[in-house]
Amino acid sequence: MKASIITIGDEILIGQVLDTNSQWVANKLHALGVELVETVSISDTKQAIVNGIDHAMSIADLIIVTGGLGPTKDDVTKYTLVEYFNDELVLNPEILEDIKERFRKRGIHFSDLNKSQAMLPKKATILPNKLGTAAGMWFQENGKIVISLPGVPFEMKGLIDAEVLPRLKQIGGFPSQVYQTYVLYGVGESNAADALEVFENNLPDFIKLAYLPSPGRLRLRLTGTHQDKWLLENAIQQLGKELMLVFKEESIIEGDVSYVDVIQQYLTKNKQTLAVAESCTGGKIASDITEKSGVSQFFLGGVVAYNALLKQNILGVSKEIIEKHSVVSKEVAQEMALGVQKLTGADYAIATTGNAGPTTDDTNEEVGIVFIAIATQNQVIVERFNFGQPREKVLEQAKNKALEMLSQEILKNQ
Amino acid sequence: MKASIITIGDEILIGQVLDTNSQWVANKLHALGVELVETVSISDTKQAIVNGIDHAMSIADLIIVTGGLGPTKDDVTKYTLVEYFNDELVLNPEILEDIKERFRKRGIHFSDLNKSQAMLPKKATILPNKLGTAAGMWFQENGKIVISLPGVPFEMKGLIDAEVLPRLKQIGGFPSQVYQTYVLYGVGESNAADALEVFENNLPDFIKLAYLPSPGRLRLRLTGTHQDKWLLENAIQQLGKELMLVFKEESIIEGDVSYVDVIQQYLTKNKQTLAVAESCTGGKIASDITEKSGVSQFFLGGVVAYNALLKQNILGVSKEIIEKHSVVSKEVAQEMALGVQKLTGADYAIATTGNAGPTTDDTNEEVGIVFIAIATQNQVIVERFNFGQPREKVLEQAKNKALEMLSQEILKNQ
Repeated sequence: MKASIITIGDEILIGQVLDTNSQWVANKLHALGVELVETVSISDTKQAIVNGIDHAMSIADLIIVTGGLGPTKDDVTKYTLVEYFNDELVLNPEILEDIKERFRKRGIHFSDLNKSQAMLPKKATILPNKLGTAAGMWFQENGKIVISLPGVPFEMKGLIDAEVLPRLKQIGGFPSQVYQTYVLYGVGESNAADALEVFENNLPDFIKLAYLPSPGRLRLRLTGTHQDKWLLENAIQQLGKELMLVFKEESIIEGDVSYVDVIQQYLTKNKQTLAVAESCTGGKIASDITEKSGVSQFFLGGVVAYNALLKQNILGVSKEIIEKHSVVSKEVAQEMALGVQKLTGADYAIATTGNAGPTTDDTNEEVGIVFIAIATQNQVIVERFNFGQPREKVLEQAKNKALEMLSQEILKNQ
Repeated sequence: MKASIITIGDEILIGQVLDTNSQWVANKLHALGVELVETVSISDTKQAIVNGIDHAMSIADLIIVTGGLGPTKDDVTKYTLVEYFNDELVLNPEILEDIKERFRKRGIHFSDLNKSQAMLPKKATILPNKLGTAAGMWFQENGKIVISLPGVPFEMKGLIDAEVLPRLKQIGGFPSQVYQTYVLYGVGESNAADALEVFENNLPDFIKLAYLPSPGRLRLRLTGTHQDKWLLENAIQQLGKELMLVFKEESIIEGDVSYVDVIQQYLTKNKQTLAVAESCTGGKIASDITEKSGVSQFFLGGVVAYNALLKQNILGVSKEIIEKHSVVSKEVAQEMALGVQKLTGADYAIATTGNAGPTTDDTNEEVGIVFIAIATQNQVIVERFNFGQPREKVLEQAKNKALEMLSQEILKNQ
């Protein structure tokens, strides 16, 4: 089964909102064995929706449409679909009762506009929305399925999980789709491709190799589709082993692992701990680590020392050093790392201080300069970086570089 | 001029990677006055690319294609475009020299595969890439423009800014496109629409009103397109004033403002300061605040007290209170807020403690429970929330709710 996702909303086309719905649905379809051939974002107009569905019908059997189901005038998806399928709107008494009940519970006035949310197409299967007032709709005609869902992410996700996936599973007959990622450090895309030439030429038809370069690392992905799940999984596992043998052991890791994964794995294994002292990164490193569950095993926390006084009063950075070298300096980064290590008793510590911009306040360094310090059990390493501009890039790169430096120190000490 | 964006890459269709390029380009096109009618993500195959371009040609005059320009076998965009435009690849000596120079500088071996990056279409205008080895290509035929750019975000952005936008500006003749957002608190979508019925019916043809609901707030957006920039900007400004008068003054704010904007505005104005003490949110609140520039005017920093010992040793939460009520409790949230306020001397403090899940460790509360405390100059407010699951949602909602509670306290004290 081939699928297409259509997200409807001018907010995406004018760049006001980032479409995250498509990726979420893409993951679900991939796991189910449905081949997604296209995702499209279009405008909130009848004409754009009709064109979009016509085009999707020509390349896919399953079309998932999100957005445009609100009660307001700018939302036209439902009316367009009803016309498209020569259907008509009828009052759905159960959905009306659901909506009224939602309003009663929250003590909000129920208006005629809300009643329009219970006017639903006669021929479609109605998918009740437990998290909002816009019901989902499942149209089926000439072997094609068109599913319309609200665009609010948590409502859309609730409907996919509770209503859409169980129905698709009942249809069944999907092949297995599997991918496995390997992360390669210190090898460029073209050098990796040269090294993998023979391996790539010998891949079976149903498995593809992809290269995903990004600053500092290259991800390699083996992707396969096959009716026989066991055969596919074994083939990918076996080929993955061969692929890893092409490179030096320390330069490749199996899985789409991040630096935080590496840090978590080794510190948890060794029962060691980590604390952070963040100035310019302002909590970004701590936040990145604590996005993962289970990190309380090794992550103690730390100090966001955005203000110079906090660097002195909590982390014990000396006033003289700040005055002599300014807050953005090698010396301050070093004292911050040692300070938070002492304060928390952690085995490892990360510290950052820099000018994320756009202004440099009263420091000696230009915008983009960041000092990162890593304190281990027997030394402190400090490096100076120029991450350029703009601010978001400086913060993101400083965070990634700090986690990379720490993973390397941890791996050295294994 | 109507535009379409095509992003190429299986990594998007299998859900491995989130497409952020489209939004970035969408913003640039909107500011320029180019109407984006569709964004599409498709697979790395010749067939998909040809279909995608054929379809885009039928609805747009300008097609921006990103991705598939690497030197490896999985990248076929360049070869497909050359065939599509009946063009041929020729060696571009300047680009070859550029690439060799990049490799020399970084001390990396230059291979034949890299040389293939300098084989470029004869008829296209070549756009030099200062940040990578994949040059951009500008094809023009029968009044349609197709621009091919690398998919690596910072390379694509560099090429858009340095090469694509200046050329589009030269073509010129675009209308003005303007939008203005208003954020409404405490009013639902349907009630807002009822209140705005007359306003909406009287809008001129060239201005549209859109409703963007999300948990806890509703954004209203006026969007317009007109050849006369002055007329358009004045009309939107005037209508914005009328729109705001429909609601109570305290429930609507002009601009796509976040809670951090509100906090920054008032604390900076009043020369007051803020510190945070984060347990479950793990640095997310600090990180959100410091994403913005200029926040050092009011934001001091704070403590990420992920581990219970840090709550005691740095924030001074008493061991007895933790043992009596467990770390996830109203009492601990309150002591954390007061502790960080005292430690930093801040006027306001935020504290969070909760179970983000998936496990509850050794606390009394279930997964999803978060206590948020706000310390002001004369009191501490603590609230208990159940943000459910999964972990990411709990963390995101706890962060948003904490910033919302703080803005409300700040606004009360005005």
